[in-house]
Amino acid sequence: MLKIGTYKYKLSRWQFDFEDKLSVIQLMNLLLESAGNHAEERGFGIDNLMAEDKSWVLLRARIEFLSDYNEKKEIQIETWVDEIKGLFTTRRFNVLDSRGEVFCAVATTWAMINIKTRKMLHLTELLDEKFLFTEKEALTKAPEKINPIDEKNEALSRVEALYSSIDINNHVTTTRYIQWILDSFSIDDLKENRIKIFEINFQNEAKFRDTLEVHKQKISDEIYIIELTKAPEIQICRARIRFEKKS
Amino acid sequence: MLKIGTYKYKLSRWQFDFEDKLSVIQLMNLLLESAGNHAEERGFGIDNLMAEDKSWVLLRARIEFLSDYNEKKEIQIETWVDEIKGLFTTRRFNVLDSRGEVFCAVATTWAMINIKTRKMLHLTELLDEKFLFTEKEALTKAPEKINPIDEKNEALSRVEALYSSIDINNHVTTTRYIQWILDSFSIDDLKENRIKIFEINFQNEAKFRDTLEVHKQKISDEIYIIELTKAPEIQICRARIRFEKKS
Repeated sequence: MLKIGTYKYKLSRWQFDFEDKLSVIQLMNLLLESAGNHAEERGFGIDNLMAEDKSWVLLRARIEFLSDYNEKKEIQIETWVDEIKGLFTTRRFNVLDSRGEVFCAVATTWAMINIKTRKMLHLTELLDEKFLFTEKEALTKAPEKINPIDEKNEALSRVEALYSSIDINNHVTTTRYIQWILDSFSIDDLKENRIKIFEINFQNEAKFRDTLEVHKQKISDEIYIIELTKAPEIQICRARIRFEKKS
Repeated sequence: MLKIGTYKYKLSRWQFDFEDKLSVIQLMNLLLESAGNHAEERGFGIDNLMAEDKSWVLLRARIEFLSDYNEKKEIQIETWVDEIKGLFTTRRFNVLDSRGEVFCAVATTWAMINIKTRKMLHLTELLDEKFLFTEKEALTKAPEKINPIDEKNEALSRVEALYSSIDINNHVTTTRYIQWILDSFSIDDLKENRIKIFEINFQNEAKFRDTLEVHKQKISDEIYIIELTKAPEIQICRARIRFEKKS
């Protein structure tokens, strides 16, 4: 079996946002679907792990747009695992448009947990190194720890985790967090600026009926940090977005 | 060209809800995608109409689940137009599981508007009757006008139309309304009851930054009416859901 998995997705109008562009929210759904299929085909997918009370947890992601994109028809996602180190593994993705050009590079950090104890497991003992692929050039950096917001003032808004936010494990879905983060920007912000790099760190899981506070700090004209917290003290996730002024 | 369009969709994990089941929200995306493709292939899709300052507007939908469903792999959607009458046209859908069984029947009412005047246009002059298909058995009734909630008390909740809710026309997307409607139910409600019939009437469009009130009335143990309003006086949409107790 090839070490790199390649998956094609036809795009539909409902995956596009107000600019008629594939949204980061919908792109994340396709990245996770590709990761799931790649892992499953090689015997380390969620379904394989669940049988042994284990599961994958996404800890960090970095989505970098290498060029502006305007794909309407179809994208292709390549994904592979390029590092296993103690408790963590790095999975990478390249996203190609229908002409075969890579317009987006993604790096993600994952851990494997025991779903009963919620403890992280040592991956070097559990993942076969034959699946590692290190020959492909990394088009974006590995995801970093994002620094917290300096001074948390009054929340920008509050969101509640309801039916449509919840997956089969009673956790808020990854893409719903991303939606809430992007919803902290106005349409005018997003008309004038293009997302260049979207980074996210996942810290704790939110569940049904949790109310989360949205906090946002402008670091510079281009960079914002957004935090979702459950009550002030429980961090749920933190994102950093680097914008690029549209020309 | 065949009068009935048939479209296959592979299902992905992110289209499933907390019960690991294709949600009505995601099903609606696929229904609209099928309607769009069917119309476009026959020369009366949105892109065709936009060139003449016209557009389709969905006025009513009725989604009836004929049997419980648990499809994980792929669905097939058949769609056709079965009536043109003055200002309105009825489009029908059957949704089949991967064994080829119809588990869901849908009927929708549409109007065509001039996007500059927002006036409805006479369809008998604009739509070619050769596309009508009336030989197929209708597995659900045509959508009806839903009666309003008797007495509107305090709103159950408020929702704001932000970035992720907005389409290219600066309107809230059809599926986002359905999401807000279903989010008025708790996970426990939806664990114990299965949606048998989901009906919706669209009355006015909500736009970016609009705050909508969610109102809900229990008509009987099985039937609920949910209304989304912008300020108390502007009706946005109204849904009626008939549940069936799970056995």
